[in-house]
Amino acid sequence: MPENTPHLTDELRESPFMRACRRQPAPYTPIWLMRQAGRYMPEYREVRSRMSFLELCKTPDLAAEVTVTAVERLGVDAAIIFADILLIIEPMGIELGFAGGDGPVIHNPVRSSADVDRLREVDDIASLNFVFEAIRKTRQALAPGLPLIGFCGAPFTLASYIIEGGGSKNYINTKRLMYNDSGAWHAMMALISRALTKYLNAQVDAGAQAVQLFDSWVGCLSPDDYREYVLPHTQSVISSVAPGVPVLHFGTGTAALLELMREAGGDVIGFDWRVRLDQAWERVGHDVAVMGNLDPVSLFANVEHVRAEAKKILDYAAGRPGHIFNLGHGILPETPVANVMALVERVHEG
Amino acid sequence: MPENTPHLTDELRESPFMRACRRQPAPYTPIWLMRQAGRYMPEYREVRSRMSFLELCKTPDLAAEVTVTAVERLGVDAAIIFADILLIIEPMGIELGFAGGDGPVIHNPVRSSADVDRLREVDDIASLNFVFEAIRKTRQALAPGLPLIGFCGAPFTLASYIIEGGGSKNYINTKRLMYNDSGAWHAMMALISRALTKYLNAQVDAGAQAVQLFDSWVGCLSPDDYREYVLPHTQSVISSVAPGVPVLHFGTGTAALLELMREAGGDVIGFDWRVRLDQAWERVGHDVAVMGNLDPVSLFANVEHVRAEAKKILDYAAGRPGHIFNLGHGILPETPVANVMALVERVHEG
Repeated sequence: MPENTPHLTDELRESPFMRACRRQPAPYTPIWLMRQAGRYMPEYREVRSRMSFLELCKTPDLAAEVTVTAVERLGVDAAIIFADILLIIEPMGIELGFAGGDGPVIHNPVRSSADVDRLREVDDIASLNFVFEAIRKTRQALAPGLPLIGFCGAPFTLASYIIEGGGSKNYINTKRLMYNDSGAWHAMMALISRALTKYLNAQVDAGAQAVQLFDSWVGCLSPDDYREYVLPHTQSVISSVAPGVPVLHFGTGTAALLELMREAGGDVIGFDWRVRLDQAWERVGHDVAVMGNLDPVSLFANVEHVRAEAKKILDYAAGRPGHIFNLGHGILPETPVANVMALVERVHEG
Repeated sequence: MPENTPHLTDELRESPFMRACRRQPAPYTPIWLMRQAGRYMPEYREVRSRMSFLELCKTPDLAAEVTVTAVERLGVDAAIIFADILLIIEPMGIELGFAGGDGPVIHNPVRSSADVDRLREVDDIASLNFVFEAIRKTRQALAPGLPLIGFCGAPFTLASYIIEGGGSKNYINTKRLMYNDSGAWHAMMALISRALTKYLNAQVDAGAQAVQLFDSWVGCLSPDDYREYVLPHTQSVISSVAPGVPVLHFGTGTAALLELMREAGGDVIGFDWRVRLDQAWERVGHDVAVMGNLDPVSLFANVEHVRAEAKKILDYAAGRPGHIFNLGHGILPETPVANVMALVERVHEG
């Protein structure tokens, strides 16, 4: 195997998920679910009853355990390492906490050019060793044929958290910095992007077979703003991932950004449920794989509805190689586990 | 003048706004702004310091005053009556309140088929006389050439409030009812639509020259769900507005719904900022007028940025008759008034 993908065995290479990333035919449509190891699962809530969210992220044995448990329980076709997109901002000098409901709180948000200057370059990614250790342990514990996905937040989404100090409704501070001081904005995005490049490649070295960029909040931008303020940075991260490692590029609210996200890069473009999969795939081009796109709220309906909606999406994919089934965003905390299992079963039926 | 548009003088008919609604050339691009009489205005805050939001809505003299003050202060090309989209749900038997931050709270949300059965048909629209009285007073106080826009929430957005009991992040209750009990869903949407038809036409009778449907939250739906659960109802409201009265049909997060919104109807389709105006206009067709679409957050940047963004949108409209300038959503509470005035000035420069 090539040096860039140190853990890619033949069995992993030929797994349905990895074949779909390369747009090769697979025996069935592979499925995994964003936040598949989340709060909707009793096993996860049990572990969390003993520690905080951040402690869990920083305890490799347990992060590996919840990662593997979810995969085994659901029978999905890929694992994604249990971690948080904001872990990378701590070595930048950002003070991160999580409030009761798991919402992130940043105690020293960046608001000005001077604040940007104070951000620390992430020269040494070793401060995130707990993530790489969790990946190593997960890789050892996982069935040998099951791919493990590493991930990071995309530069825009991370910048929006760092600037707003948490979640945001309107992204006023983020856009104000972007519009009024584009020099500081681009400097910050470049610093974040350099850190992400190191972070993703270290996850690959530790045992991830693919990586995903989550640009969860990029849908708040106009297409022109995306092109000017975001695209070059996302592109630089994606193009710096080790060759041979599939990159999944996901965002929500991106119905008008799909062509630009494709331009930014990725072997697999992830959609939310607001677009029709056939139309979205046509727009990004059939020479790229796609991922999606069941509305996570569909899982709150009855099983018949879940099965019918899964079928509809499979029909839109029309058996074209290169479709990875997923939700259009993360599983919601109150989702009935039985419905999630019914979904996985239905997708595997084809 | 035709009987259906009792207050349409020649002067109003030939105003830039009304001409744009009919896609006729106007001397300059008309502009008005959603929530132009809102909290960002000191004059409005002064009135509000004396009473609650609902009291203001129900006091015709003052509702007319804030409506007219905003128009005169900003120099915009249309007034929109000061009111709230949720006023219409009170005569349905829904108990409505507004919490401190002006967020609506519904004390008896609809969750089941039995709850839907308990909703009251709005046979007599006279319980909303305070709105019609505010329209009459506004029409008298406004410059005779300035059109007055009446409005309502679109059926989906109203249903989502009635079901969720307020704002929502994921619309779980709304979609659960929609998916699991489509009979109850359609019955509720039909009842809302019948009420809206009466409500809009009564606003026209009282003095409105045009009406707008706000489908603010419809962007949470997939295109297939929009077609099945929403489109027929919105269509029935729009098609029942008195002939000769332009209907503006607006939503946010609708980048994948534009063709379907056009199908549902409207003389003017309103976009948010997430789509490029030229591309969106192409998609809905040049045989309909359009409204939009500056990001409300752009108004938090410096004046040069505001002017440049306004110019960009005017360029996308390319001088084609039928463009009404607006924000992509309502003005935000902390918006600097000076920037709003600079925007109006820049749009009028052409």
